[in-house]
Amino acid sequence: MRKAGLLSPSCAGAWRSVRMASSGMARRGPLANKVALVTASTDGIGFAIARRLARDGAHVVISSRKQQNVDRAVAALQGEGLSVAGTVCHVGKTEDRKRLVATILDVNVKATALMTKAVVPEMEKRGGGSVVIVASLGAYVPFPGLGPYNVSKTALLGLTKNLARELDQRNIRVNCLAPGLIKTTFSQVLWMDKAREESFKETMHIRRIGKPDDCAGIVSFLCSEDASYITGETVVVSGGSPSRL
Amino acid sequence: MRKAGLLSPSCAGAWRSVRMASSGMARRGPLANKVALVTASTDGIGFAIARRLARDGAHVVISSRKQQNVDRAVAALQGEGLSVAGTVCHVGKTEDRKRLVATILDVNVKATALMTKAVVPEMEKRGGGSVVIVASLGAYVPFPGLGPYNVSKTALLGLTKNLARELDQRNIRVNCLAPGLIKTTFSQVLWMDKAREESFKETMHIRRIGKPDDCAGIVSFLCSEDASYITGETVVVSGGSPSRL
Amino acid sequence: MRKAGLLSPSCAGAWRSVRMASSGMARRGPLANKVALVTASTDGIGFAIARRLARDGAHVVISSRKQQNVDRAVAALQGEGLSVAGTVCHVGKTEDRKRLVATILDVNVKATALMTKAVVPEMEKRGGGSVVIVASLGAYVPFPGLGPYNVSKTALLGLTKNLARELDQRNIRVNCLAPGLIKTTFSQVLWMDKAREESFKETMHIRRIGKPDDCAGIVSFLCSEDASYITGETVVVSGGSPSRL
Amino acid sequence: MRKAGLLSPSCAGAWRSVRMASSGMARRGPLANKVALVTASTDGIGFAIARRLARDGAHVVISSRKQQNVDRAVAALQGEGLSVAGTVCHVGKTEDRKRLVATILDVNVKATALMTKAVVPEMEKRGGGSVVIVASLGAYVPFPGLGPYNVSKTALLGLTKNLARELDQRNIRVNCLAPGLIKTTFSQVLWMDKAREESFKETMHIRRIGKPDDCAGIVSFLCSEDASYITGETVVVSGGSPSRL
Repeated sequence: MRKAGLLSPSCAGAWRSVRMASSGMARRGPLANKVALVTASTDGIGFAIARRLARDGAHVVISSRKQQNVDRAVAALQGEGLSVAGTVCHVGKTEDRKRLVATILDVNVKATALMTKAVVPEMEKRGGGSVVIVASLGAYVPFPGLGPYNVSKTALLGLTKNLARELDQRNIRVNCLAPGLIKTTFSQVLWMDKAREESFKETMHIRRIGKPDDCAGIVSFLCSEDASYITGETVVVSGGSPSRL
Repeated sequence: MRKAGLLSPSCAGAWRSVRMASSGMARRGPLANKVALVTASTDGIGFAIARRLARDGAHVVISSRKQQNVDRAVAALQGEGLSVAGTVCHVGKTEDRKRLVATILDVNVKATALMTKAVVPEMEKRGGGSVVIVASLGAYVPFPGLGPYNVSKTALLGLTKNLARELDQRNIRVNCLAPGLIKTTFSQVLWMDKAREESFKETMHIRRIGKPDDCAGIVSFLCSEDASYITGETVVVSGGSPSRL
Repeated sequence: MRKAGLLSPSCAGAWRSVRMASSGMARRGPLANKVALVTASTDGIGFAIARRLARDGAHVVISSRKQQNVDRAVAALQGEGLSVAGTVCHVGKTEDRKRLVATILDVNVKATALMTKAVVPEMEKRGGGSVVIVASLGAYVPFPGLGPYNVSKTALLGLTKNLARELDQRNIRVNCLAPGLIKTTFSQVLWMDKAREESFKETMHIRRIGKPDDCAGIVSFLCSEDASYITGETVVVSGGSPSRL
Repeated sequence: MRKAGLLSPSCAGAWRSVRMASSGMARRGPLANKVALVTASTDGIGFAIARRLARDGAHVVISSRKQQNVDRAVAALQGEGLSVAGTVCHVGKTEDRKRLVATILDVNVKATALMTKAVVPEMEKRGGGSVVIVASLGAYVPFPGLGPYNVSKTALLGLTKNLARELDQRNIRVNCLAPGLIKTTFSQVLWMDKAREESFKETMHIRRIGKPDDCAGIVSFLCSEDASYITGETVVVSGGSPSRL
């Protein structure tokens, strides 16, 4: 699950109700009848992941901070015959949110930690679960000009390790995805200009910029039973950019 | 593909003929109609990988140094209705083999490099391919008493990076799997004694020792189109043992 | 410099005045006539680092949040004939401090980033400088039960990389020290009980628990001209505990 | 000690005799009265390291495969008043050498392992010792076109970890240095052409190419008592090139 928001009571509620509603439905695939909560999933990488998990059999809860974005994403995936619900995730009071989302470190790290802990009890009831945190190649090799973003992503590598060990006894696995340069709205400043795109591709030693879908298969895999012995690990999806050994 | 042997002309020949023979067969799954050469695959992790690739649609070539082991493995998998052929991979002259396999470093590193280069032309003819090298958790955190083995596995992490970059322009991806403690004949000295097994589990912070099948899904995934933006990476499959960030 | 506090105007002032005062003094050693600001330096690792930098010729500013601790540390080092001054570093308003130090992530990561940026202009005036951030082995291999601490330390590895690149053009190097288990007040819960100490030593594959002084030499080295081509790197000081390749 | 040759009986002999001869001499500095064997030390990084160790008080044994190079280096350092002896290190029979040095992997990895093991008994007699292996930034981020070299250097990262653990009980520390792009005869193809140099500097995010002396201080530090709690670690000296967290 992508982690870039805060779980509100309504989020947790939505998730639970999906779980109940889903008991009467039969899905196929490696994630059959699993429930997946994907945060920040109305667009880009999060949306690609949500669609993939749904295609692989999961009941997916789309979430984001804006109702209209959630509605649009849910409608799009339901239109494909997928089992999808939506919820707006936000913090109750505006002033709280302002403070909490004041910094990238808070949003990317603390919110991810809080969110994971919020869903743990529900996962335990189901006998276990799988969390996939989305970090970034910038966690290993800083993207220039994005210091706080990079550092927050490095912290997520550590969070993955820590949560994995903490939750191991509850049969919950925690892994991480570190995408390189992926064509999304978020990253468009890096590739909209053709010359800049070429320069980035050369610097990163890649032949092409990634697509959101390039990140979706690995998340589905990490959530599946096939990955049941993989926890605490980060997989880099960057087309061969220098990362780490 | 696991890399722990040397490609002889007969191996390459077997691979080609499988490819031709396979053109008349229709398989399903994420690896449909791909041809997979799995070295050291008559037992343990290699065998689990071979079976999984075949179940996912690939035409698999089992290989090893001993004819009877190959025959047994091929028969077992054909008995499951899978598309499998076998070949004995060896170096032509005995004295050459003796020298070449004289050290673990030669077998694990040079043979892997040579093998990969031997299959590249065939992959290029097919428009691309995927190589999966099998390293070990010992590459990151030394297994005590296994120095040369550990070092050869560390070298494979570097080989993965180097081959990935070299072969990127030919549409060949190269990734790596680093298993932790897996229950195989090879590792039985570590887990046959119950007390020793418990001690290892505590040291490695894992709840259970892995099974060969725990390594199979990720190899199939890395060979599939879903992983087309993943190259040069190593995935650790170790149940949460300390590895690397 | 150790980073575990916030730079207040009084800190910056102290640093500047030391610099001025020091112009009439001649010190010897690899850090002769350099000015070093060491935060959280009244005890343990920070104190050992401060003493070492002073012995190696630097004019050292001890800092901490409590006046009496600063006074004690300064007196101790001046008693050894070292060039040392002290300053109490705190955030102006109590309520601000409460919020700012509310979480380990804030103190360990944001404060380190802010502090570094606060001293950069002074370093630039001097033609360059060197920052040494103190992370922890827990950044790589989580210490059990210390999740937020570990994650904040992982973030510091990324902060080191990012600051190193950002400040490179201003001739400021940024490196990092990751101590393992060191005998300090902070870590005493881990080693006060003899049986627990032995268990930790076995788990960490070390013969002895480290001393604060084990961390001091490398900081002095990283601040010296000898390290002028080393930036963005983390050195682990852990007696051989598993860390990273 | 740099490791890029093979220890012959004459090498070991030279080392022992230096040790004996040295007992009547008094040297000062952090390495006072230590004996240092530096292989491949007649030029470039090895020579800079040898000189630095001698300046820091060690009795240094220069070694290389060619007598005239050894003589020249020894004369140069003795001319500076340093305590230096020389020895030609070679394998007894030419045909053996040919086979042993047949590949980069043999020379860089096996020879380093053999060499270390050859000096261990002598170190034990002295109550302990320190080994510094020279790897390369290419161990982490492949230098293009230098595959076998890069892989052998990656293997050295693992060798460092393994030897560190094996020799820990004998009070011998083993660390590693990973230089980036350093101006030596070996690397001149990368920087002799001004345009190429600029391109490399941009790719590696560095302001300047390193000098052999940039590698010398850290080796002296790692051999000193100040580093007595550092073992199994690799320090990257690359001017801020991307390396690893």
